[in-house]
Amino acid sequence: MRLPTGMRDFAPAAAASRRRIAETLLGVFERWGFARVITPAFEYEDVLALGLGDAARAAAIRFVEPSSGQVVALRPDITPQIARLIATRFREETGAVRLCYEGTVVRLERAARGQRELIQAGVEMAGVAGPHGDAEMIALGVAALQAAGLGVPTIDLGHLGLAREILDAVDLPDGAREGARLAIGKRDQAGLEEILRAARGPKVATAYALLLPQLSGPPSILADARKRAPTAGIKRALGELQAIVDAVADRAVEARVHVDLGEVRGFDYYTGVRVQGFVHGAPQAVLAGGRYDDLLGRYGRPSPAVGFAIDVEAAAAALDARSGADASAGHGNGHGGVLVVGPAAAAQRVAAAQRALGKRAVAELCGLTGAALDAYAARWGFTEIIHAEAGAGKTPPPAGRSTPQKRKQ
Amino acid sequence: MRLPTGMRDFAPAAAASRRRIAETLLGVFERWGFARVITPAFEYEDVLALGLGDAARAAAIRFVEPSSGQVVALRPDITPQIARLIATRFREETGAVRLCYEGTVVRLERAARGQRELIQAGVEMAGVAGPHGDAEMIALGVAALQAAGLGVPTIDLGHLGLAREILDAVDLPDGAREGARLAIGKRDQAGLEEILRAARGPKVATAYALLLPQLSGPPSILADARKRAPTAGIKRALGELQAIVDAVADRAVEARVHVDLGEVRGFDYYTGVRVQGFVHGAPQAVLAGGRYDDLLGRYGRPSPAVGFAIDVEAAAAALDARSGADASAGHGNGHGGVLVVGPAAAAQRVAAAQRALGKRAVAELCGLTGAALDAYAARWGFTEIIHAEAGAGKTPPPAGRSTPQKRKQ
Repeated sequence: MRLPTGMRDFAPAAAASRRRIAETLLGVFERWGFARVITPAFEYEDVLALGLGDAARAAAIRFVEPSSGQVVALRPDITPQIARLIATRFREETGAVRLCYEGTVVRLERAARGQRELIQAGVEMAGVAGPHGDAEMIALGVAALQAAGLGVPTIDLGHLGLAREILDAVDLPDGAREGARLAIGKRDQAGLEEILRAARGPKVATAYALLLPQLSGPPSILADARKRAPTAGIKRALGELQAIVDAVADRAVEARVHVDLGEVRGFDYYTGVRVQGFVHGAPQAVLAGGRYDDLLGRYGRPSPAVGFAIDVEAAAAALDARSGADASAGHGNGHGGVLVVGPAAAAQRVAAAQRALGKRAVAELCGLTGAALDAYAARWGFTEIIHAEAGAGKTPPPAGRSTPQKRKQ
Repeated sequence: MRLPTGMRDFAPAAAASRRRIAETLLGVFERWGFARVITPAFEYEDVLALGLGDAARAAAIRFVEPSSGQVVALRPDITPQIARLIATRFREETGAVRLCYEGTVVRLERAARGQRELIQAGVEMAGVAGPHGDAEMIALGVAALQAAGLGVPTIDLGHLGLAREILDAVDLPDGAREGARLAIGKRDQAGLEEILRAARGPKVATAYALLLPQLSGPPSILADARKRAPTAGIKRALGELQAIVDAVADRAVEARVHVDLGEVRGFDYYTGVRVQGFVHGAPQAVLAGGRYDDLLGRYGRPSPAVGFAIDVEAAAAALDARSGADASAGHGNGHGGVLVVGPAAAAQRVAAAQRALGKRAVAELCGLTGAALDAYAARWGFTEIIHAEAGAGKTPPPAGRSTPQKRKQ
């Protein structure tokens, strides 16, 4: 009974941990004033594509809507949907719009020869420009990861405006610009040197671009990078990143902050800071986001915007790795409970009485006994077995005629 | 910025009410011992179709999976996915398997000339045959609807085994059987009479079939219907329904129970009792389910099974109708909160301190003042405005230098 590549079921224990993580994250987002919204699973492809970068656009699964004959796409990212929502339902809002969401996205992945379904929990804030908005998002991301039990994260900060300024300054012929960006992103020093031979800009700019793949480290590297910046635009972008780092420090955010000036992924999407969050136990970023001040304009309501999404599955894997736990063991939700055995009607009435006392309770209706019963209780996380006699629970007090019996642990 | 037919966004207040309902329902399901699982948004069409009736199969949106070239379908129903999950991950389970879920399904609807995306919360129980299993599900459905604030529901009980027995007894020529079923379902007495002229079975069977469209009312109608039953099979099916009604009564389920022997929808899917739950404020059923003892066998693990799903959107509409509230008013989540104004860094620090006290708190970063500020706070559900002075929150106690000021209500 195969499933399509990248599609999966979550059995009880795994589902419970995903739900717990998602609800914890959303709880933090709401405490920070972000209002939860729900968006549809698919949309017209052209509307969705407005708000996607090239990579996300290529990753969208498209199909023809049977009723209209139009092309729709399963959302590979919820951010463009939120942008559309803000541009329509919140068009007249004069203050900040803070929204959060939780949902499933589907992405084609060439490497996996198929797609992946991801559960994402994320936030978007529109209307706030500059480092204070960025700092709020970074602080919120850190608080959310910590609340989910992921400890002190490492926050990687890049700046897409900086990459843009540098590529402008080196002035490459058409076509070579994208190659230069890819070489920077891959830390391919030799490839970058090769491409930069065609640069028409000043030598200082080319020399500076060659430094980029190495410009990664503690925020203290920013001061030197800024001193050596060959153009006003580059200096300004670095100043912006410095202001964000300062604003984060000022808010006593509990995270290791790392700066990476060679981070140029998401070039067609982000306009300013790019944020990635790493935690112990996860090889990839569990949080990704940044500033995209162009996005809302594409939906007809220009406004600065910043946001991030947390990959719930990556967070769950990190939690498992941290605790050494096997999330697939057992079917219970970890809350314990009472299994009531005996004649069906009596067992059901006693189970009802137990639930009225606030317990998780179930009538065993398959006639299990002895070791099979004990094994069933253990498998499904019941920590107590009660034997109900015929007629039990018929007259109040409801559990009066049952014979409670603690299960041996 | 149009959306495909039947697809919609839920703005904050509407999203909050849907989340609240879904979480309440799932909380009840879990207290009744149902373990939550998560299934994928789409599957191979042939695997999904195994567990769908004709109507649901026709309602599935299919497309070609880009990587494999195989046909997949967005799930129009989560029940077949749970059946597949039970048949694979719970293949060896000797006791009852109780699972619950919450998720989005998409269905083509001819009448709407498009599709509808529905949020469903449901339960499935495998391994328990007979009226006690049915009674547990009905009692759980009633408890869940009541917990969601929907009051005392009306539970409509039909029996698909009964319809099958009756259609067997009248013995119609090929092709006429489906017409007879449709006529019964539509309460089309004249049409039914016309079709039954071709009946080859005994006259008493035909006469009994003609009664079906009218056999609807309180459970007391069952005794008479059973007395007049022309075959042993019909008598047995009615006896089963009587046993379910008795089991429900025995468990003191708080619902109006209504019996409808002319209910024959889901003929290709249900094998026994068919349950629908109606609440004040909703024209259609908010709960639908029943017994499908054939379903798990289609996935290679024969086992009796019974379940239901609640339509979260219908439940939300009913709640709105009951309270006369407009779910689209305001953007807050109804939990109140603090809006902090002042210099950005100070406002953010004071907001953090407020959150540390357990409040929902946000720094206002758009420079709103006066009436615009008050309107913003009202719109987003903030019930308090605090003015933070520069430097506030820098030294503990964090909120020390802020000047709290209650917002005028």
